[in-house]
Amino acid sequence: MKSGQVIRCKAAVAWEAGKPLVMEEVEVAPPQKMEVRVKILFTALCHTDVYFWEAKGQTPVFPRIFGHEAGGIVESVGEGVTELQPGDHVLPVFTGECKDCRHCKSPESNMCDLLRINTDRGVMLNDNQSRFSINGKPIYHFVGTSTFSEYTVVHVGCLAKINPEAPLDKVCVLSCGVSTGLGAALNVAKPAKGSTVAIFGLGAVGLAVTKKFGCTEFVNPKDHNKPIQEVIAEMTDGGVDRSIECTGNVNAMISAFECVHDGWGVAVLVGVPSKDDAFKTHPMNLLNERTLKGTFYGNYKPRSDIPSVVEKYMNKELELDKFITHEVTFAEINKAFEYMLRGESLRCIIRMEI
Amino acid sequence: MKSGQVIRCKAAVAWEAGKPLVMEEVEVAPPQKMEVRVKILFTALCHTDVYFWEAKGQTPVFPRIFGHEAGGIVESVGEGVTELQPGDHVLPVFTGECKDCRHCKSPESNMCDLLRINTDRGVMLNDNQSRFSINGKPIYHFVGTSTFSEYTVVHVGCLAKINPEAPLDKVCVLSCGVSTGLGAALNVAKPAKGSTVAIFGLGAVGLAVTKKFGCTEFVNPKDHNKPIQEVIAEMTDGGVDRSIECTGNVNAMISAFECVHDGWGVAVLVGVPSKDDAFKTHPMNLLNERTLKGTFYGNYKPRSDIPSVVEKYMNKELELDKFITHEVTFAEINKAFEYMLRGESLRCIIRMEI
Repeated sequence: MKSGQVIRCKAAVAWEAGKPLVMEEVEVAPPQKMEVRVKILFTALCHTDVYFWEAKGQTPVFPRIFGHEAGGIVESVGEGVTELQPGDHVLPVFTGECKDCRHCKSPESNMCDLLRINTDRGVMLNDNQSRFSINGKPIYHFVGTSTFSEYTVVHVGCLAKINPEAPLDKVCVLSCGVSTGLGAALNVAKPAKGSTVAIFGLGAVGLAVTKKFGCTEFVNPKDHNKPIQEVIAEMTDGGVDRSIECTGNVNAMISAFECVHDGWGVAVLVGVPSKDDAFKTHPMNLLNERTLKGTFYGNYKPRSDIPSVVEKYMNKELELDKFITHEVTFAEINKAFEYMLRGESLRCIIRMEI
Repeated sequence: MKSGQVIRCKAAVAWEAGKPLVMEEVEVAPPQKMEVRVKILFTALCHTDVYFWEAKGQTPVFPRIFGHEAGGIVESVGEGVTELQPGDHVLPVFTGECKDCRHCKSPESNMCDLLRINTDRGVMLNDNQSRFSINGKPIYHFVGTSTFSEYTVVHVGCLAKINPEAPLDKVCVLSCGVSTGLGAALNVAKPAKGSTVAIFGLGAVGLAVTKKFGCTEFVNPKDHNKPIQEVIAEMTDGGVDRSIECTGNVNAMISAFECVHDGWGVAVLVGVPSKDDAFKTHPMNLLNERTLKGTFYGNYKPRSDIPSVVEKYMNKELELDKFITHEVTFAEINKAFEYMLRGESLRCIIRMEI
């Protein structure tokens, strides 16, 4: 029984921006009030890990344990945690749901005041300390999940308790990218049957938008010498009914907005922009009855909604297996970074059992 | 019986940009296919008339008969017009509804492909000619209505047939500004009961948004030395639930968007921007689950929806009388321009019977 004790385990530590992760033995402190210690079984690599690891234009917080798409099993729980117990299967999520703030009480928002994503914070909320250390020196958390470790500590509000029969090596991708894309389509864009939909960017998020990989046309902006919004408008008799931007490039965001049909078109922005970006359009594009919306994690509330997304997979209503293009052992974690940087992988699953 | 004959009547002609209108005797040709000749009883002056009369940054089209908020009675109908007959009470509207295009068939759009507002066109669609002339020389139309004339010719798709018991000197203001503001609130922003709503601009449109003049706070940006969106966010614990921009100033549009609460806030743009404006915001404001929508004529379809807005007035569910601050005779029409330019009037009704 390790509950209440420090656990020594392997973690892949990022010591410096852009340098390969180093497998280290770390100490993981026991969970404090409203915290849960989770044994990670599978984790995946998402582009967001890579952005903050590269720390180009992002606040550098090092040494740090990255990782936020994962599946695991509760090892022990801290004071006040009643809804989870050791043995429960969970997906850690980079943003949380306290169930108490105005956002959590609103049917529309998932931007919890307490547990909303904070990419600059490397410590736990309860005491502003890290639960990870090496020789007494702190190793920082990433978005409250830090799943590139055999054990991690997560706020209970950032854990979705899921069906224990769900295969964690598959459903772990619902922790971030796939849910983000799926929710952008189902919860925000809500295209009617038969609608035309333009998807900008076909990484894991964009492909999740298409659900069962249902694209009918591929348009490469490099094949055209005019703005892609004009090309799309010509292809679709005035514009698409819905567009969903999944790249984070601000020019793609503008194109995604301007390619929707006037009168009823809705553009949904999913991609995360850079700090200095400006979204710029002529206001007449709005007056002509277009709608522009953003979404964060597909508008899913992690605790309330993600368990039912897992059920969709269990009921074969949702494609996940095809997102997983690679698999490596934990010791080979740097290969996952290489696959992504070379544009070869959609999702690479990292098996924690070495 | 004047049907099929040219009518000679009084009209207030704008010969040059920014110069007082001149009362002239004009010839009004009979209505052609799908057109209706209307005897105007009351017309009001709207800021849009003034913008195009000033023609600063707008295409100058002169000589022209302005006017687009009005109430009248059908005098005669052209070929193919079956839904109106002489004696029907109508409101001319600056944008139309053909009932046949994709927009008219969509429950969401009122931006008719055939009869959508066209501020540069000074002629009728059927033959690209004006129905107004003086000594054989054409006087141009304005947005298909040209109500500053005792008689005018309007496409049947731009006429709302209304309850003949409705007082035309009141309901004429539903031809434009009041419906625009009312519809922006009821059809687009749709605030839930108890919501906080920020209205930018309290002209006739902004006041129509407030419906029964229900403002609780007035905020003057000049009283503050920080961006007004920050002031509003502080007043409302993070932002308003809805904002509605009714000025057309692009900076007010940006403030209106940025002052809505993340997670659920919806900003609605009503004001008409200038040609060279750019709406500019950080895309993170969108990612944080704000929505930005535009609306045109309050998303009302002129023929299908405006008759029921008139009924709202008849049932005392709608305030109109307070919008009417001034009244002049047709001969005094230039006074209406002066009241508006001095910021003294909301709506000035012009009685056509001299």
